[in-house]
This record gives sequence, structure tokens and C-alpha cells, in this order.
Amino acid sequence: MMVSVNAPNRESLRSRRRRETEREIHLAALHLARAHGFDKVTVEMISAEAGVSPRTFFNYFPNKDAAIVQGPAELSEELAAEFVSAGPAPAKQVLTELTRLLTRDFSEHPPQREEVHAAFELAREHPQVLAVLLARFDAFAVHIADLVGRRLGEEAGDEVPALMAAIALAAVRQGLDRWARASDDGSPVPYVERSMDLLRTLLAP
Amino acid sequence: MMVSVNAPNRESLRSRRRRETEREIHLAALHLARAHGFDKVTVEMISAEAGVSPRTFFNYFPNKDAAIVQGPAELSEELAAEFVSAGPAPAKQVLTELTRLLTRDFSEHPPQREEVHAAFELAREHPQVLAVLLARFDAFAVHIADLVGRRLGEEAGDEVPALMAAIALAAVRQGLDRWARASDDGSPVPYVERSMDLLRTLLAP
Repeated sequence: MMVSVNAPNRESLRSRRRRETEREIHLAALHLARAHGFDKVTVEMISAEAGVSPRTFFNYFPNKDAAIVQGPAELSEELAAEFVSAGPAPAKQVLTELTRLLTRDFSEHPPQREEVHAAFELAREHPQVLAVLLARFDAFAVHIADLVGRRLGEEAGDEVPALMAAIALAAVRQGLDRWARASDDGSPVPYVERSMDLLRTLLAP
Repeated sequence: MMVSVNAPNRESLRSRRRRETEREIHLAALHLARAHGFDKVTVEMISAEAGVSPRTFFNYFPNKDAAIVQGPAELSEELAAEFVSAGPAPAKQVLTELTRLLTRDFSEHPPQREEVHAAFELAREHPQVLAVLLARFDAFAVHIADLVGRRLGEEAGDEVPALMAAIALAAVRQGLDRWARASDDGSPVPYVERSMDLLRTLLAP
């Protein structure tokens, strides 16, 4: 009983520490990229700034580009589980609830405007950063497609989950980009909602 | 007068030759990736197969991943000019005409199913190929946003052009992926149209 009670806590502690180290390396990388310019930063500099060895660095990131650029995080497990467990529903209702899920998650875990801004700006200037950012957004879309698929009892690659994820991705990417470029330290939620509304308007019959 | 009459032809000959060489290198790269596996192929092998020097290879592609994976090509100049010159119109009408533009272009310059299939399969297996493919699709979306922006007298990064491009991208990517996976040697057009219709259905009020 001790084991089964404690195991989840131990695991969650380990995974929390891992997340913290990952975040420290990321913030060190972002700080150095801003201070010295993207091209000047090396893995050695990032490791030294974060207080880890280069070997540890490579346990977390394959290269400096990946350390500098973070994409949208996966949705919180509680919100995701709530969405999935609501079960099959008409596609339109699922899309409405997916939108609500995204905006709730952004409200509860607000992204840092400066970080998002820096990521989009670096991506505009450096093709290799754009490649990383696009891969992160694509992973986010795959995550969304997986949630929609599980809810509908379909595969993530099936038409409806894949297209819903594409819609969510477009709204999140455009919304975040616009929010990051605006001088708005408030929430990105209205920007994402506005992009979603505009998508609806464009595709309305 | 001679110069001004001949210059465009000379330029177009040079750019046609460039396109042919690019295509030869791409087909050599794709052939080798299929024959030996993606990981085994080198720039030297691709150059030898295409009959160019590695130096020439790097005039066309930054690395083997880029040579192996091609994304959707830019729309033909005539079709693009026709679309842009129609001038401002309500956003919904522009989106309808954009869809027609995409399907006309696919009809007139049909992509090769085997090439598209190979690109999507390699992207599923190799993260670095996925990164190249996503960058190609993103460049295609920027191209579409530019056309829509020019037609509407807006910037490519403005909301409506950017979101229309995101919709077009979702329909093209999903449509091509589905077509490439189907055992269908016909046109990808019905697949792209079907994705667009499904997007409309999902977002209808």
C-alpha cells in the first residue's frame, strides 16, 4: 500500500523537477539570445548560464534552437480529461467545447507575452528557429487531434479530428502572434477568440 | 530594343534551366532515399546520381533533407495574376475564389502522388524531414496570404489574409495527405475540395 500510495507522488516529483530544469535552461537560452543575438549563443554558454553541464543540456534539448524556442504547451491533464470524458457529440458542439477548452487553459496557464514575442520575432529572422516553432505548433495540433479523436472514438489522423486540430492551430497561432505584437500585457484569450470568430465568419455559408 | 525584347526570354531560359536542375537533384535524392533508406543517403550520393558536383548541389539546397522533400509549389503566375487583379471583394467571395484558384492550379499542374506520398511518409518517420515539410507548407501559406493581401489591398500579415491562408493550408495539407494515402491515382482535387467542405461544415453556425 505504501508503494502504491507513494509511487505517483515520487513520479510526479521527478517529472516536476525535470520540467523545472527544462524551464531554467530555456530561460537562460532566451536571455542569452536577447543579450548577445541568436547567432552568438552556444550550447556551452546556455549550459553555463543555467548551471548545468552540456551533457545535461543534451538530455533536454537536441540543439540551441530547440532550447530557445518553446511552442504552446500541452493542455493541463484535468482539462483534457474533462473534455475527452464528455464523450461523442455533434462535431460543431465538440469544436465549440474545444475552443472553450483552449481559452480556459490559456486563462489558467497564461503564456508569457515576452517569451511568445521573442519566439515569433526570432522565427521571422532565422529559418532554423521557424522550423523549430512550426514543429512545436504541429506537435500541439497532433495533441489536440488526439484529444478530439479519443473523445469521438476516432483516430487522431481521421478527417474530423485532424481538421478541428488545424482550425484550433490556426486560431491559436494567429491569436498568439497578434497578441505578442500588440502592446497588450493582458490575456491572449480575446485574441485567440477573435481569430476563431473570424474563421467562422470567413467559412460561414 | 533588342535588349528589352530579348532580356525576358534569356531570363526565363536561365530560370527554366535552374528549375530543371533543381528537379533533377530532387528526383535523384528521392530515388536514393527510397532505394537505400533516408539515413543512408548523403549529399555526395545525390550529387553523383544527379550528375552535378556537391558544390552545385549546395547552390540549390542547404542539405539533403531539403533536396528530398518538396512542398506545394507556388501557384502559376497567370492564375495568381488573374486572382489578384479581380480586386477587392467581400471576404467570403475571395475565399470561394481562392479555393477555385487552388483546385484549378492542382488540375493544371497535378502533383505526383508517389512524391507526395513519399514526403508525408518520410516526415512521419524523421523529425528533420517533418521540419522541412512544415517550412515548405508555411512558405506556401505565406505565398497565399501575399496574393490575398495584394488583392484586398492589405498586408499579407493582416488578419483576413493570414487566416484565409491558414484555411487554404489546412485544406491542401489534409487533402494531399489523404489523397497520397488512398490508392487513388486520379486527381487530388476532390480530396482538397472535400477538406474545404468539411471545414465549412465544422465552422458553420
